[in-house]
Amino acid sequence: MVETLTLPEGLRLESGAHLAPLEIAYARYGDPSLPVAYICHALTGDAEAADWWDTLIGPGQVIDTDRFHVVCANLLGGCKGTSGPSSINPATGEPYGTDFPLFTMRDLAEVHRTLLRELGIERVALAVGGSLGGMQILQWSLDFPDEIERAVLVCASSKLTAMNIAFSKVARHAILTHDAMDVARMMAHITYLSEEGMERKFQRARRVPDADMTLHSDFEVEHYLDHQAKIFLARFDPGTYLYLSRVMDYYDAFGDERPAPPSTRYLLVSFSSDWRFGTEHSVIIAEQLRALGVDVNHHEVDSPWGHDSFLMDVPEYHEHVRNFVYQDVASTL
Amino acid sequence: MVETLTLPEGLRLESGAHLAPLEIAYARYGDPSLPVAYICHALTGDAEAADWWDTLIGPGQVIDTDRFHVVCANLLGGCKGTSGPSSINPATGEPYGTDFPLFTMRDLAEVHRTLLRELGIERVALAVGGSLGGMQILQWSLDFPDEIERAVLVCASSKLTAMNIAFSKVARHAILTHDAMDVARMMAHITYLSEEGMERKFQRARRVPDADMTLHSDFEVEHYLDHQAKIFLARFDPGTYLYLSRVMDYYDAFGDERPAPPSTRYLLVSFSSDWRFGTEHSVIIAEQLRALGVDVNHHEVDSPWGHDSFLMDVPEYHEHVRNFVYQDVASTL
Repeated sequence: MVETLTLPEGLRLESGAHLAPLEIAYARYGDPSLPVAYICHALTGDAEAADWWDTLIGPGQVIDTDRFHVVCANLLGGCKGTSGPSSINPATGEPYGTDFPLFTMRDLAEVHRTLLRELGIERVALAVGGSLGGMQILQWSLDFPDEIERAVLVCASSKLTAMNIAFSKVARHAILTHDAMDVARMMAHITYLSEEGMERKFQRARRVPDADMTLHSDFEVEHYLDHQAKIFLARFDPGTYLYLSRVMDYYDAFGDERPAPPSTRYLLVSFSSDWRFGTEHSVIIAEQLRALGVDVNHHEVDSPWGHDSFLMDVPEYHEHVRNFVYQDVASTL
Repeated sequence: MVETLTLPEGLRLESGAHLAPLEIAYARYGDPSLPVAYICHALTGDAEAADWWDTLIGPGQVIDTDRFHVVCANLLGGCKGTSGPSSINPATGEPYGTDFPLFTMRDLAEVHRTLLRELGIERVALAVGGSLGGMQILQWSLDFPDEIERAVLVCASSKLTAMNIAFSKVARHAILTHDAMDVARMMAHITYLSEEGMERKFQRARRVPDADMTLHSDFEVEHYLDHQAKIFLARFDPGTYLYLSRVMDYYDAFGDERPAPPSTRYLLVSFSSDWRFGTEHSVIIAEQLRALGVDVNHHEVDSPWGHDSFLMDVPEYHEHVRNFVYQDVASTL
């Protein structure tokens, strides 16, 4: 069940802009007296982590809701209850759209911290995120080195490459110039998969093997992309896509001054076939954290399913997370 | 200089459709009494091979116009003088658009053969093509095993993967649904480059380093894509994009009956960082040709420039082509 916190005084963003009111939509699972596991979602997720991450989170699962109080909020700029471009701008009575203030990874983390403060939680035993989710946790742990005990960053990045930014740009161009979020999603969807994964799933199969060639969706893989784009258009806001993709482009976790060493212990997981934020991204994070003297475990897991592996039931990956989460914690949990 | 051949009787396509009239735009370089080198262009090329492939073709170049009579035609379905979707449909007096008949790789080769027959050329000493260009030559050599003496197929494919088709689909969807060939081109452009090549060229450089964040083209790589898309929109026809990308999706050189072994000698070149038609595509072609008992040289060339390497001055690649083209031919050339 999604609850909503409303802060009439709002939040001052890193840019200096003031956003008020601020609404934060969040979901909680399990007994509030248990240690807190905070989940950060990726570009197109929402607060209901036990739904979209049901391979990982639930009673008896890797992130066990019988052992953790699991909390997840829709991101700032989101379209699932937290203030974002589709929210009403009090100055106009209309949705903000691209009048919504631009924001940063730090602002995303600050919204999570604001929520926890309101819930009376000062420190989380565990923070877990994949892709953009992991990036928020990384920034949070660098800015507030005592607030996160253990962090699991799955196929995250500390800064995007030129190619990553290029794909983001094309998606934004499709939305801004052609109102074509379906195209943006189709393209992004390919980058979440892998050549091998797509080959296993679709090969060159045609919908109707002996039908005449057309310019439309003759191949199964084409039909799949049509279907995914249609679902996505019905559930997602183009403004959110614009803003959150931009946050990622600008993110550079270790670009500024050298941060203080966090007390956080980190597990990094990357996937062999991920070409969006592949192993080289996790290697950079590990190197930078180790240079601060921080304890980091990094595992590359063999998986054919590309970036999407983080949402899938990949046993070796789950085993690494389980070992990391429950290691040496029998006494406190 | 581009010349145009008009065949009022037209051409019967593999589908059974009859296209009339057929115009073929072509360019020739060098002395017509020299052995013929036939060039096939890729998705967005044209007949003027010595312009767009000036790294390879010209006096004293690898494909030496002092030693070969070089011929190149705009492809069937093209928008640079050969009949295609932007040509006038004699039945309506309007451009064909998507009423242009669908066609195949075999039809592309047949147009080249038709041109050569009209020029009085029965056999070519050398045929060279990159990407879709190589695919046409492969099909031609399989269907007419005595017409091509030596074939150079650079980063070609005998059949696209599900991921290749997926990218084609998104491009066509952008064009058909949103009139957004700029988006199609931007996305395709990324697939022609490589992560490493883009990193060398752009890194995360911003146009104005200290400017405020916007949703528009703050990063150099974004500006580059805008610029490339703008040039492309001005020079290319969306219908051609639709039809030629579809020809590639459906192509399956070794999918039907086992062809007769061509007498052609083949050189295949692939590039280490090409992830559009990478080395694995050339490996499949080599294996299939060798299974027919045919002589094949295949070299993977180390290059950071992705699929676009075939158009670039990559010395090791050019050296392989030169060795192959002039080996054992002193007497005949």
